[in-house]
Amino acid sequence: MTKPALLVVKIGGNIVDDEQALNAFLDDFAAIEGNKILVHGGGKAATALSKQLGIEPQMVNGRRITGDEDIKVVTMVYAGWLNKKITAALQSKNQKAIGLSGADAALIPAVKRPVNEIDYGWVGDILLNEINTGLFDSLLAQKLSPVIAPVSCDTAGNLLNINADTIATYIAVVMSRQFDVTLALCFEKKGVLLDIEDEHSFIEKISSSDFAILKEKGVISNGMLPKLDNAFFAAQKGVQQVVIGHAGDIKRLVEKKEGVGTRVMV
Amino acid sequence: MTKPALLVVKIGGNIVDDEQALNAFLDDFAAIEGNKILVHGGGKAATALSKQLGIEPQMVNGRRITGDEDIKVVTMVYAGWLNKKITAALQSKNQKAIGLSGADAALIPAVKRPVNEIDYGWVGDILLNEINTGLFDSLLAQKLSPVIAPVSCDTAGNLLNINADTIATYIAVVMSRQFDVTLALCFEKKGVLLDIEDEHSFIEKISSSDFAILKEKGVISNGMLPKLDNAFFAAQKGVQQVVIGHAGDIKRLVEKKEGVGTRVMV
Repeated sequence: MTKPALLVVKIGGNIVDDEQALNAFLDDFAAIEGNKILVHGGGKAATALSKQLGIEPQMVNGRRITGDEDIKVVTMVYAGWLNKKITAALQSKNQKAIGLSGADAALIPAVKRPVNEIDYGWVGDILLNEINTGLFDSLLAQKLSPVIAPVSCDTAGNLLNINADTIATYIAVVMSRQFDVTLALCFEKKGVLLDIEDEHSFIEKISSSDFAILKEKGVISNGMLPKLDNAFFAAQKGVQQVVIGHAGDIKRLVEKKEGVGTRVMV
Repeated sequence: MTKPALLVVKIGGNIVDDEQALNAFLDDFAAIEGNKILVHGGGKAATALSKQLGIEPQMVNGRRITGDEDIKVVTMVYAGWLNKKITAALQSKNQKAIGLSGADAALIPAVKRPVNEIDYGWVGDILLNEINTGLFDSLLAQKLSPVIAPVSCDTAGNLLNINADTIATYIAVVMSRQFDVTLALCFEKKGVLLDIEDEHSFIEKISSSDFAILKEKGVISNGMLPKLDNAFFAAQKGVQQVVIGHAGDIKRLVEKKEGVGTRVMV
């Protein structure tokens, strides 16, 4: 028996920050038929609110630390404003949707990242095998698209900041046991670029050996590394299709059109 | 056949603002068996954030107007921080919980309040008969307690600020068709007080004729009037038990102990 299809899309901060781009994306997302889960990042809105509140970001080795005030800001912006704005907008486009965080119904159980060299503060690591797939099943059966904010909690009730790419990836992995899953990691680039300055230099396919070479040569670096690590984790753990591409191309990415986005091969 | 029991509790801002009182209440709430829905207000947290952001509250005839910036603050604080904090805390107390706003899954459809003498801005009125009882049924069947933030949206995707007492009341009314519902409107007083200065002057029962007399004499005024209007609406529309009392008394209110809270009689 073939598995039913499920689309898991992650949209990044640059789309979420741009009202027009977000609206166009949500139009496209609403128009796609079938089972869908949307995971959204937060973008500059949280940083902007922190600045307005006079909270200085703490950085260690170039990485942001989530302090007591930061987790409050992140939860307000991601799980509050953005999550509800996106959910309300989808419904206005005739897409039934339910906004949730990983903290709701133990949807995406997490633990506070252990302190080794760096104390990241209220940052969480997902417990992959404890994801509440039963709730996803129940919501999808009701034709509801879950809209997930990148916030969760531990069993002690502490809220935790979680990477949105990782949430989308882990959901795709656990759901791939019952569904034929397409994971689309969408952002403001057309795919994995060979030249970060050239929008048209995206590659149509990437294998893990390609990735190793490009990484070694320094062609792929910074923010793309964790995104590709997630993408390969998904592909290796059974997610049937993994694509990286522009949020504005979501329909063509899902239709598997040639020349759109980068396909991640096991 | 007797209907299954359902408890709908509303906790007000004064409890939500007080970390210790909130924690004690959540311990009690978690310990109560059976079907439960929790609706929370927002309290001073939204006002405090507005002040920090330099947003001046607009008041008309002593009533707060929800402007473009205010609805953002309210959604961040109510549906973001407080909703997720309460939901995470309940789960740490072994109470399965799911935090939602009225905007999620068209749970509590609303319309922007029409502009008559006063333009309240982004304030919503609930469409009673369109409340998504099916989702409540499905969540309760999964032993999840919905935790509801007082925010919803209209069909155009506009987020709306909604009175939390009214949300709890309307949920109680529509659910009373299938359940034997107890509606507990909890705040920081022991019940309906005959003398606002005397904590012990609460009355054990109030009928609508009592209410009319007390209202005329000016014994009940200000914030208690809309709360009692909601309470009588619930009782008249079929909610089986309606009580007003202290959040710290929730267990005894539910157990219908004598001398605890004010019971609202049809």
